[in-house]
Amino acid sequence: MTVITLLTDYGITDSYVAEVKGAILKINSEAMIIDVSHDVGNYDISAGAFHMTRAAPYFPEGTVHVGVVDPGVGSARKGIIIKAKNMWFVGPDNGLMAPAADRVGYEQAWEITNLDLLPAKVSDVFDGRDVFGPTGALLSKGVSPDEIGTRIDDIIRLPYYQPEIDGNVIHGNVIHIDGFGNVVTNITYETLKLVGVDSEASFKLTVDDKEYTVPYVRRFSAVEKGELLVLVAGGRLS
Amino acid sequence: MTVITLLTDYGITDSYVAEVKGAILKINSEAMIIDVSHDVGNYDISAGAFHMTRAAPYFPEGTVHVGVVDPGVGSARKGIIIKAKNMWFVGPDNGLMAPAADRVGYEQAWEITNLDLLPAKVSDVFDGRDVFGPTGALLSKGVSPDEIGTRIDDIIRLPYYQPEIDGNVIHGNVIHIDGFGNVVTNITYETLKLVGVDSEASFKLTVDDKEYTVPYVRRFSAVEKGELLVLVAGGRLS
Amino acid sequence: MTVITLLTDYGITDSYVAEVKGAILKINSEAMIIDVSHDVGNYDISAGAFHMTRAAPYFPEGTVHVGVVDPGVGSARKGIIIKAKNMWFVGPDNGLMAPAADRVGYEQAWEITNLDLLPAKVSDVFDGRDVFGPTGALLSKGVSPDEIGTRIDDIIRLPYYQPEIDGNVIHGNVIHIDGFGNVVTNITYETLKLVGVDSEASFKLTVDDKEYTVPYVRRFSAVEKGELLVLVAGGRLS
Repeated sequence: MTVITLLTDYGITDSYVAEVKGAILKINSEAMIIDVSHDVGNYDISAGAFHMTRAAPYFPEGTVHVGVVDPGVGSARKGIIIKAKNMWFVGPDNGLMAPAADRVGYEQAWEITNLDLLPAKVSDVFDGRDVFGPTGALLSKGVSPDEIGTRIDDIIRLPYYQPEIDGNVIHGNVIHIDGFGNVVTNITYETLKLVGVDSEASFKLTVDDKEYTVPYVRRFSAVEKGELLVLVAGGRLS
Repeated sequence: MTVITLLTDYGITDSYVAEVKGAILKINSEAMIIDVSHDVGNYDISAGAFHMTRAAPYFPEGTVHVGVVDPGVGSARKGIIIKAKNMWFVGPDNGLMAPAADRVGYEQAWEITNLDLLPAKVSDVFDGRDVFGPTGALLSKGVSPDEIGTRIDDIIRLPYYQPEIDGNVIHGNVIHIDGFGNVVTNITYETLKLVGVDSEASFKLTVDDKEYTVPYVRRFSAVEKGELLVLVAGGRLS
Repeated sequence: MTVITLLTDYGITDSYVAEVKGAILKINSEAMIIDVSHDVGNYDISAGAFHMTRAAPYFPEGTVHVGVVDPGVGSARKGIIIKAKNMWFVGPDNGLMAPAADRVGYEQAWEITNLDLLPAKVSDVFDGRDVFGPTGALLSKGVSPDEIGTRIDDIIRLPYYQPEIDGNVIHGNVIHIDGFGNVVTNITYETLKLVGVDSEASFKLTVDDKEYTVPYVRRFSAVEKGELLVLVAGGRLS
């Protein structure tokens, strides 16, 4: 079965996520729909981009990732399809999907223009259900993106997700604190490899003007309880 | 694959939803189970009815909607099957499913009476797992409702969900405030069409004794930030 | 389709659950993944064991239950496979899965030792995604546990889940309070049968030094609103 992942800021109380899933299954009843998160803060593109970037590479070839954190719904912002290696991304052109597509391997993008292929709609407030979900379902059935849209030169990228590399120094940002209290940065395993950081390294961190030297380890049990550590959680991709 | 949707007030912390899904898959391992919401307030039939009414029409033909908001479990309330056009609804006869079935196109109802087809049970506290889930699974496999139950003349309807139409005036109710802060009424697109409201209309709203004239628009971006608007989110069904 | 259930303490905000699902689908794209709960308190093995014990028996034969509440990840704790009748359990050897496996019918356990079958990893912080999910996917495809691991004599059991039986007296523990306010103990229907408790019985409960005599009933409606009752919710398994 083809996998379609879903990331939104709809929450799980309302029926909105289910409406998107229904619209997908109406087009492709064989799709396997997997939730990435619906608990992204309302309109928080940055948080949504983070979760999608972490999750996307672990999915099988052919997966379609539908992302809807869309403060500009109904405005002139584009709806887009991105091809990245053997995966698809579908959602608004607002930076939400760019970091994930770049991590997987960005290749080409389309603006969704052929609305005739999609369900009729009477308002422009729910493109997740009326445009992005159905577009993802069409792609999962093998419909060509050239039938659904028009090729575009580039997509919008948020600068936030690109750590700066300056010789062997990496300037990164804290982008998330997870449910366990881990402080997550935008520095990936691939970035560390690029500047030649190996497993013997330690990091200098400054928190509230106090400086810490923190070991780079493979596991939490490598330090005593209560001590700081740096490790890679995103993992290498086979 | 046949789709079975699930709407309950069980929450997502406890294992109850999983128990229902296990009971369904034991009978039909090919069912695709989709959550509508499990975050309905405990025993809040009205909220459950709202979410189900929104979501149901977006699903493909043949979908079985199982709803369990069931304060009367173990009492004399009936367990029922509803056929509405090409869909099924299964749950307690307490008004939970009636608005959704009416929206899709109510046709016929059965009381679930043939418990021999269902798993044995030692208590009457968990009909979601022991009766409604398994009944939905049987329907999804093509078992006739006449084998599972007995035809009944009508089902219980909550008056709350039927807006009153008086000439070209619609008296509706606020039935929900969603995760984005949208105030949702029971006035549907179909109702607006019925009284001839078109896209040029504006609405008079009274909130806390103050009166507002609010435009009827297609998208949020049609008004300035911070201003009120009325729009249809439920959408036309193709 | 083969069913794989997932129980973690990852929460549903972060992408962690999706990463595990992606890793599973990469190995077996035909797996049907069902969430038991991801809202177990961080590192709360006891709560996780409770939810898994309730849910597991309701699933079809061949189901693989993957559990990850894993405070010892990266330490010397074993990763294990358990065979219990016609089901599999996969997760850390810390007592999480033992009560569920015992309820279903424990038969044999293996330590996961053949990491060559699993995706490469650069850290030991996410065995749910890198070890347990993929192991569950391999089992769901019919790979023998003898290929993935080495047989071990026994698994770790938490004493907490075994009520003490003393003649016709059962000493149980409160192990959970659910979303409806029900106080849940570790005394199962099977245990009650063992000491010959029948439907006419009543229980003596002591709460805050006050003693109550509480009837053993089949349904909530058997007592007046506001009164205490004892009933079996876990149900008999057909």
